[in-house]
Amino acid sequence: MTSDGSGRKAVGVAVIGCGYWGPNLIRNFLGCDAASLLAVCDQDPRQRARMAGRCGAARLVERAEEVLADPRVEAVAIATPVHTHARLALAALEAGKHVLVEKPMADNVADAQRMVQAAADRGRTLMVDHVFLYSPAVRKIKELIDGDVLGEIYYIDSVRINLGLIQQDVNVLWDLAPHDLSIVDHLLGRLPLSLAATGAAHTGSGLEDVAHLSLDYGGNLIATFHVNWLSPVKLRHMIVGGRKKSVVYNDLDGMEPIKVYDRGIDVVSSPQAKHGLLVSYRSGDVWSPCLPPGEPLGNVVRHFLDCIRDGRSPLSDGTSGLRIVRILEAAQQSIKAQGSRIALS
Amino acid sequence: MTSDGSGRKAVGVAVIGCGYWGPNLIRNFLGCDAASLLAVCDQDPRQRARMAGRCGAARLVERAEEVLADPRVEAVAIATPVHTHARLALAALEAGKHVLVEKPMADNVADAQRMVQAAADRGRTLMVDHVFLYSPAVRKIKELIDGDVLGEIYYIDSVRINLGLIQQDVNVLWDLAPHDLSIVDHLLGRLPLSLAATGAAHTGSGLEDVAHLSLDYGGNLIATFHVNWLSPVKLRHMIVGGRKKSVVYNDLDGMEPIKVYDRGIDVVSSPQAKHGLLVSYRSGDVWSPCLPPGEPLGNVVRHFLDCIRDGRSPLSDGTSGLRIVRILEAAQQSIKAQGSRIALS
Amino acid sequence: MTSDGSGRKAVGVAVIGCGYWGPNLIRNFLGCDAASLLAVCDQDPRQRARMAGRCGAARLVERAEEVLADPRVEAVAIATPVHTHARLALAALEAGKHVLVEKPMADNVADAQRMVQAAADRGRTLMVDHVFLYSPAVRKIKELIDGDVLGEIYYIDSVRINLGLIQQDVNVLWDLAPHDLSIVDHLLGRLPLSLAATGAAHTGSGLEDVAHLSLDYGGNLIATFHVNWLSPVKLRHMIVGGRKKSVVYNDLDGMEPIKVYDRGIDVVSSPQAKHGLLVSYRSGDVWSPCLPPGEPLGNVVRHFLDCIRDGRSPLSDGTSGLRIVRILEAAQQSIKAQGSRIALS
Amino acid sequence: MTSDGSGRKAVGVAVIGCGYWGPNLIRNFLGCDAASLLAVCDQDPRQRARMAGRCGAARLVERAEEVLADPRVEAVAIATPVHTHARLALAALEAGKHVLVEKPMADNVADAQRMVQAAADRGRTLMVDHVFLYSPAVRKIKELIDGDVLGEIYYIDSVRINLGLIQQDVNVLWDLAPHDLSIVDHLLGRLPLSLAATGAAHTGSGLEDVAHLSLDYGGNLIATFHVNWLSPVKLRHMIVGGRKKSVVYNDLDGMEPIKVYDRGIDVVSSPQAKHGLLVSYRSGDVWSPCLPPGEPLGNVVRHFLDCIRDGRSPLSDGTSGLRIVRILEAAQQSIKAQGSRIALS
Repeated sequence: MTSDGSGRKAVGVAVIGCGYWGPNLIRNFLGCDAASLLAVCDQDPRQRARMAGRCGAARLVERAEEVLADPRVEAVAIATPVHTHARLALAALEAGKHVLVEKPMADNVADAQRMVQAAADRGRTLMVDHVFLYSPAVRKIKELIDGDVLGEIYYIDSVRINLGLIQQDVNVLWDLAPHDLSIVDHLLGRLPLSLAATGAAHTGSGLEDVAHLSLDYGGNLIATFHVNWLSPVKLRHMIVGGRKKSVVYNDLDGMEPIKVYDRGIDVVSSPQAKHGLLVSYRSGDVWSPCLPPGEPLGNVVRHFLDCIRDGRSPLSDGTSGLRIVRILEAAQQSIKAQGSRIALS
Repeated sequence: MTSDGSGRKAVGVAVIGCGYWGPNLIRNFLGCDAASLLAVCDQDPRQRARMAGRCGAARLVERAEEVLADPRVEAVAIATPVHTHARLALAALEAGKHVLVEKPMADNVADAQRMVQAAADRGRTLMVDHVFLYSPAVRKIKELIDGDVLGEIYYIDSVRINLGLIQQDVNVLWDLAPHDLSIVDHLLGRLPLSLAATGAAHTGSGLEDVAHLSLDYGGNLIATFHVNWLSPVKLRHMIVGGRKKSVVYNDLDGMEPIKVYDRGIDVVSSPQAKHGLLVSYRSGDVWSPCLPPGEPLGNVVRHFLDCIRDGRSPLSDGTSGLRIVRILEAAQQSIKAQGSRIALS
Repeated sequence: MTSDGSGRKAVGVAVIGCGYWGPNLIRNFLGCDAASLLAVCDQDPRQRARMAGRCGAARLVERAEEVLADPRVEAVAIATPVHTHARLALAALEAGKHVLVEKPMADNVADAQRMVQAAADRGRTLMVDHVFLYSPAVRKIKELIDGDVLGEIYYIDSVRINLGLIQQDVNVLWDLAPHDLSIVDHLLGRLPLSLAATGAAHTGSGLEDVAHLSLDYGGNLIATFHVNWLSPVKLRHMIVGGRKKSVVYNDLDGMEPIKVYDRGIDVVSSPQAKHGLLVSYRSGDVWSPCLPPGEPLGNVVRHFLDCIRDGRSPLSDGTSGLRIVRILEAAQQSIKAQGSRIALS
Repeated sequence: MTSDGSGRKAVGVAVIGCGYWGPNLIRNFLGCDAASLLAVCDQDPRQRARMAGRCGAARLVERAEEVLADPRVEAVAIATPVHTHARLALAALEAGKHVLVEKPMADNVADAQRMVQAAADRGRTLMVDHVFLYSPAVRKIKELIDGDVLGEIYYIDSVRINLGLIQQDVNVLWDLAPHDLSIVDHLLGRLPLSLAATGAAHTGSGLEDVAHLSLDYGGNLIATFHVNWLSPVKLRHMIVGGRKKSVVYNDLDGMEPIKVYDRGIDVVSSPQAKHGLLVSYRSGDVWSPCLPPGEPLGNVVRHFLDCIRDGRSPLSDGTSGLRIVRILEAAQQSIKAQGSRIALS
């Protein structure tokens, strides 16, 4: 058993699922001293063949049961289709493994709750791969909010659209919105009071490919989300509007992903003004902070291993993952009910 | 009385209101042979002073009554605050004048209906200055839809945000959304079945400065609108997604405002596929058609005068303006009812 | 005779030439308290007709001689074709008028020198309308250089290209480069040591429509200029690269015309390194300073009138205008000599 | 010995040099059926360690001699520093190997000539990795020129700048310009008549980090190149201006790298016009052709192997690589001679 630079024993890891995201997890576990990649698992022999020679010393196995039965495997990363997450994660937790699971952690609230409970019962780390929380851009926005640079948050507006890979088991909301929902959950640190969502399906599968979601956080704070698999242009854009300053986060701008605008309005009391209030406009500098380099998924993997070894709770633990699933399930309900508002908390 | 190049008599015109938009109307009437600008009216002496020397031979008068009493004035253009539109337009129509009124034509449906009725009763032209319908860009999109270049429309998504002039009598939806609603009304040619809207107010006036509106046209066609007076960045962006092709209209791109994307998905029946349908992706050329030059407001003014002289109904007649007010009033209702869905037709 | 807000007498002004730029001068003189626009002159009756009603109380006259003979006219602004600048400016100076002349001030060095001499002999203000020197963006860059924010300047690279109005009497270099040359002259405050230029002509007139100019300022500082009348895309872009920071000035970006980049290299001595020097890379924040609003030509007109009344020398006086003509004449020589290097100072 | 899908024997290949570019070559040879990667060579043990597990079945060796002595190695790819290209390529050709060498093929004309001669004498394939010639974008531009879509070429203007890795043995011209020079050489298919270049060095090494190069092709066709290692912004931009249409190639625009503009001027004879010629402006559509996917280096590797097996001459053969070195050597001369014009052919 190898050990990392700190002299601590490396964690024995297995990755289940080698489709779209699995190979990225494998690459990052291989590149991390704190992990020892022991097994890679996929039911599909073609996927296993594709991974031959890209898994270091890890064994390529067909069945997840085989991985879970291996006592050297202390932690598993689950990168399989969404509807299999709960079954595999529960089996892993019951086998005493720590679990890193892809987003969304489950396709319904009940399953997500079971996962959180199982992790608590067994004293195991359950982490959801909300990878954007580990990106330098989101870390910087969080820092700006926590440091009160933006002031009270007025609204958040998020767009994530492009001609995307249409999923077979979940709609565009379950596929794309977890990214933006987890970012906003992290930034605001609380559940919205209610939500409403609309969507439309055009492929005949009945799964929405265009959707809009509006979260009401109370106190005039709303967060809106637009996700779309059919857009001819690719946009990944979030505006966080604050009383003092606003941030625009453009994930596709490699050079200046975050811009902080000292632009907005100031409202002061004034008996002369129509509503007793005077609005003035502020137009100040724009600042794009330099962000540290580094792949967010590398940070995910290190954080997962650190949490296991230190017994700490991950930033994106099961509870936070559950909040996202709550929102998604309620949004789905709202779409089915013609956009009716659904209370959340 | 002067006459234009066609030998026809020029129409005697007056402009009421010289604030933000009035001067543009005045400039365009002055530049149009078919009009003879006779009077310009504003209650505020400072506004009248500002216009001195910029109104050609037109008289500068204080009271609208004076204009309406002048028999040489055949048509008036009304560019006053929204809450005065109905009163002024009704007075003008009753005085036998043709009317061009700024958008939105009224701040409630009942008033808008009265205006339509009055114009019909008197046999006068009532036109709403939905100026974007007269822009080369929107004309081209209409042509692409009518010529079935885009195929069945799947969704329309519109964004019009920037740090804008906060109005004192209407919220951001009544201020900005009429532009986009009139464009979509023109493109689709029918009322939506229902809508839902959300918004938030931050200035203490109770008027929303951020709002989202979702229109359901049935048959999986939704149109969504985002308007915002607080955004640090300026965006005026509309995507019209079609089965065959999609259009992106960026009103701020002076060189290539319209791009037609031959990108999308094709759905074919396939017994092998999960839902019995196979989705394939199409990635083709992008084409930005060259648009004719010309100021849309110049087209508005000419169209208004042509309709008066030819007895034709304008493209943006009272009935189409009324549809926009219907949507705005229902959207207002939905915001007040926490985003509840409101049926329209 | 009117007077401005400061109680000082307004300067009697005439504008000669109402083609492309003249109307802008007229509008700005009309909007400036310190000026009293007395006459507007153009040989072409169609241009005079076009200006009727847009010149306030000024007389519209045909012949410049008439303007120069009017003792109430204290200052003239000359906006005629380049080859007429010297003749008209010399006549005006000899008639005791102050002169604001369009760029370039003359089409040859000898004429420009005569103009500078005539202004000095008569004690009159001679100012060249290098309008970009009066823009907030260039003022800010000058401030950053003078405040040593950028450090030693390494290079300047300027691009000004678009499908432009092809001139009949000067090539693209004389038409477009004066803008960028005057900016760089202002920023660096000195003549280059030498230059080399190349160009190509495609219209049959023999006048270059594409040209590149390279100025050597010594000490490893070069400034390069690309001007082009045929480009399908419009670019107005200048990079000022400094040892500490660099500025990118994009005149077409209305929101963030100036960006200051804390990016570059640091060179330190190191006996281990190949050349005894170690290069490290610095990647820091980007900052876009907020610029005050205001039309640069308004600043030009006010500065001209202030200089007349205070007897001060303008920022863009005849001497600075002469430096630009020197560079243009030498660049022309270099093009004719196949790009040979020409010494300047 | 393995064989590819066509039933032909795979070519035994070795890669020499595993620094920046070598791993890309290795990955592409591993992914190509037509190659059998037998050996990977690097003097530096750290580089070899880094490549362990990423070279398939290939041996990792220290000395190039060992590779050249292996009779199973039929072809070598050389990705070492520029000053070693000629020595290694000549040794490989003399050992009877086919050679793919990185750009520029040598750091002087004499060496490049020797390489061409050696390949001819031995009947071996010599190909230079001018990778952009194998990109879908450049192929499309070539197609547009050859199909006379653009008409006569008026000018080419290329910019390739960013804060780049400063080389220790060559200046920015030898490092970056080969890309653009090879593209232009490919598009125009001939040597320029003459050139002039300027540059400046700021790191103390004496190697230029900013350079401008102007090529004169006669007949009013000029091509200009701007390369810069210090720029705070990254630009990779080429305009090909034609009589009929123009192309803008933006290598950083992943969605629309090529745009074809139907914009320009038309010149017709006219006795009335000043120079007997009348210029009119044309403003038409913009078209961005869809390009096939695929990594250019994959195309390079396949083309190299095809040429070896079919005995064909590569698109970027030694002769074309030699033309690029001729231009670079002359440009270097011109910089040293203060930008003097150097004749080429």
